[in-house]
Amino acid sequence: MKKIFFLSFFLLTALTTYAQQALWGGAPVVSPEIHDDNTVTFRLKAPKAVKVQVTGDFLPPIPIQTPRGVWDAAGIADLKEGKDGVWEYTTPEPLGPELYSYSFIVDGLKMLDPANVYINRDVATVTNIFIIDGGRADLYKVNDVPHGTVRRMWYNSPTLKKERRVTVYTPAGYETSGKRYPVFYLLHGSGGDEEAWMALGRTSQILDNLIAQGKAEPMIVVMTNGNAAQEAAPGESKEGFIVPTMTPQDSKEVNQGAFETAFPDVVKFIDKTFHTKADKHHRAIAGLSMGSFHSGNISRLYPDMFDYVGLFSGTPNTKSNPDVPAYADFDGRLKTQFAKKPALYYIACGRTDFVYKSVTDYRKLLDTNGYKYEYYESDGGHIWRNWRVYLTEFAPKLFK
Amino acid sequence: MKKIFFLSFFLLTALTTYAQQALWGGAPVVSPEIHDDNTVTFRLKAPKAVKVQVTGDFLPPIPIQTPRGVWDAAGIADLKEGKDGVWEYTTPEPLGPELYSYSFIVDGLKMLDPANVYINRDVATVTNIFIIDGGRADLYKVNDVPHGTVRRMWYNSPTLKKERRVTVYTPAGYETSGKRYPVFYLLHGSGGDEEAWMALGRTSQILDNLIAQGKAEPMIVVMTNGNAAQEAAPGESKEGFIVPTMTPQDSKEVNQGAFETAFPDVVKFIDKTFHTKADKHHRAIAGLSMGSFHSGNISRLYPDMFDYVGLFSGTPNTKSNPDVPAYADFDGRLKTQFAKKPALYYIACGRTDFVYKSVTDYRKLLDTNGYKYEYYESDGGHIWRNWRVYLTEFAPKLFK
Repeated sequence: MKKIFFLSFFLLTALTTYAQQALWGGAPVVSPEIHDDNTVTFRLKAPKAVKVQVTGDFLPPIPIQTPRGVWDAAGIADLKEGKDGVWEYTTPEPLGPELYSYSFIVDGLKMLDPANVYINRDVATVTNIFIIDGGRADLYKVNDVPHGTVRRMWYNSPTLKKERRVTVYTPAGYETSGKRYPVFYLLHGSGGDEEAWMALGRTSQILDNLIAQGKAEPMIVVMTNGNAAQEAAPGESKEGFIVPTMTPQDSKEVNQGAFETAFPDVVKFIDKTFHTKADKHHRAIAGLSMGSFHSGNISRLYPDMFDYVGLFSGTPNTKSNPDVPAYADFDGRLKTQFAKKPALYYIACGRTDFVYKSVTDYRKLLDTNGYKYEYYESDGGHIWRNWRVYLTEFAPKLFK
Repeated sequence: MKKIFFLSFFLLTALTTYAQQALWGGAPVVSPEIHDDNTVTFRLKAPKAVKVQVTGDFLPPIPIQTPRGVWDAAGIADLKEGKDGVWEYTTPEPLGPELYSYSFIVDGLKMLDPANVYINRDVATVTNIFIIDGGRADLYKVNDVPHGTVRRMWYNSPTLKKERRVTVYTPAGYETSGKRYPVFYLLHGSGGDEEAWMALGRTSQILDNLIAQGKAEPMIVVMTNGNAAQEAAPGESKEGFIVPTMTPQDSKEVNQGAFETAFPDVVKFIDKTFHTKADKHHRAIAGLSMGSFHSGNISRLYPDMFDYVGLFSGTPNTKSNPDVPAYADFDGRLKTQFAKKPALYYIACGRTDFVYKSVTDYRKLLDTNGYKYEYYESDGGHIWRNWRVYLTEFAPKLFK
């Protein structure tokens, strides 16, 4: 019986490597290659291609005039063909610290980099990602610090009459500390879901790092699904492998404030299931774009629920609608919310964001009424790069 | 103030859709389209391409002769160009119920289907997936049943002297039932990690469905990282966005049984952290390929730890090595393990698997010694399709 060696998985390795090389030819190229000076080389082996380009947010954006405003599309650069059909492009300048996304375009066809398995989905688009170290971007990396736990779980929403999926981050030590923790509800934008802040927002990495550095309090972060008509992220519900869209909810439910009205369902579930400090002083809510709309509305509708409010790149509903209970009496409810002196009402926006004017108008409204808020303005537009920045700015201000 | 409408995210929708169409041209194609008769059409818009193919495990495999045996590569079929540069291929026959994976090949270049955001990573290769309903494949879908919770978390391994990442499934009701649950340790193969059984193995869907149907006991499933030198899956540790390989561990640690020796660390962590039934009768261990090697070795090394053992497409180490404590005294330890009468010792293999002969030899060894085991033989080789089948066969036999 000594003849039976434990080589089966080494054999598998050899076979797979051999078979892959036989099929796809030679050693794989390295891409992206981040050089010591933070210039980056992108490579693609495409011997039959006529034109190979790379598009991504590390390149100067291309403004596109649309009927409703200017939209910044990702820039494009050409790769040059070198030896063995390997095309190559190196950034002329070092890239600053950031999490970047990119794709290749081969003869007009957008495709992922086959040498890079790290990808993010943003609504229905999948792109590759890479990180340039340093500065704030170090918060987006997995570092050698204690790591929290991330749960994907389901709760019942009696108000929406459905089971719904939710992503919950608990800080390192949660399972054994015996302590109770404050809770931060973090909401996504239109087209997003309960995965968006994890994947695109790097929430677990940012919280792990901020907490390890002593910059943020240990806290639970709850990432809900803001589409009232949807149970879960695409692919994670009984709807199956549907094509993600920007408006998965029917407009009736959105216009009637269904998500906002039902929000206490998830708060109750979290307080019942986790070791929380279950009071207003230990609850925060923030969101981006549609999540900002939701966060403003929810905190106004339930003025005793959240002491910290963050509006990233968006504004609440400011149009009173007496027929929709969630949106009735805007003026009176906002007055009540601010009479209760929120610990923090925080607004953040990019200077070139298409919502900049509406955010400015909303700030004027608050100023006119003497309602206090903090404001953070950044470069850039309606992009995840900004929302990660806003999270790193907002989280350290909570529960202090 | 009534002029500020809550249109910002609807505007965003319109802008994004417009901008994407402006850039990439026209309505997106539907792919894959699963027809009512379960034939499937694949489509790719590639007006400049000369040749477009689809490759996947729904096509007859291509046997490749390698120096060490025959390897079944995924089959390939040609798409035909139709109107507006949209290429198309429809399967000539309906596809049977299964989770399938595929990629396109455009002028020799492998790429994902841009119309399908559902993808799996297998070691360093990313492919699209789709599911044909029915039969066993319904276990791989998210159905309208109670869903468990999936945690990605970290534990300390004093033996390996590192923090290590682990994926833990707890069944629906775990958080509120007040009950204790049995634990099933489920190990991946070479090149895999603590994400493999979740993504490629559809473990949470399979367990949700089997438990809801009353076919499997509610249980905790623990998916460890079997690479002793590795803290976590690629991209999830301080190593950053490394390129995944088939052998992330150094061979020294593998040959010395480091993972097997350290296994009690994770068992202790799980029993401390979760509501477990912390005894041999309520613990199972199974794995595929390298994970089968590990499961056999661990259950033999710690004969009082696991009452249920599953070896999927692989065999344990059968070569005694007195210099390596984990691998010493094979005969004596195996005798001890079987003298304690395991509730189930289960072996599964595909008829065309390259490990078939070594599995047959190991079964002969067990037969010769009168050691009882159950055996399940399937069609096909060393592939995830089989490992999902084995999980659906094995899990219902546990803790009964």
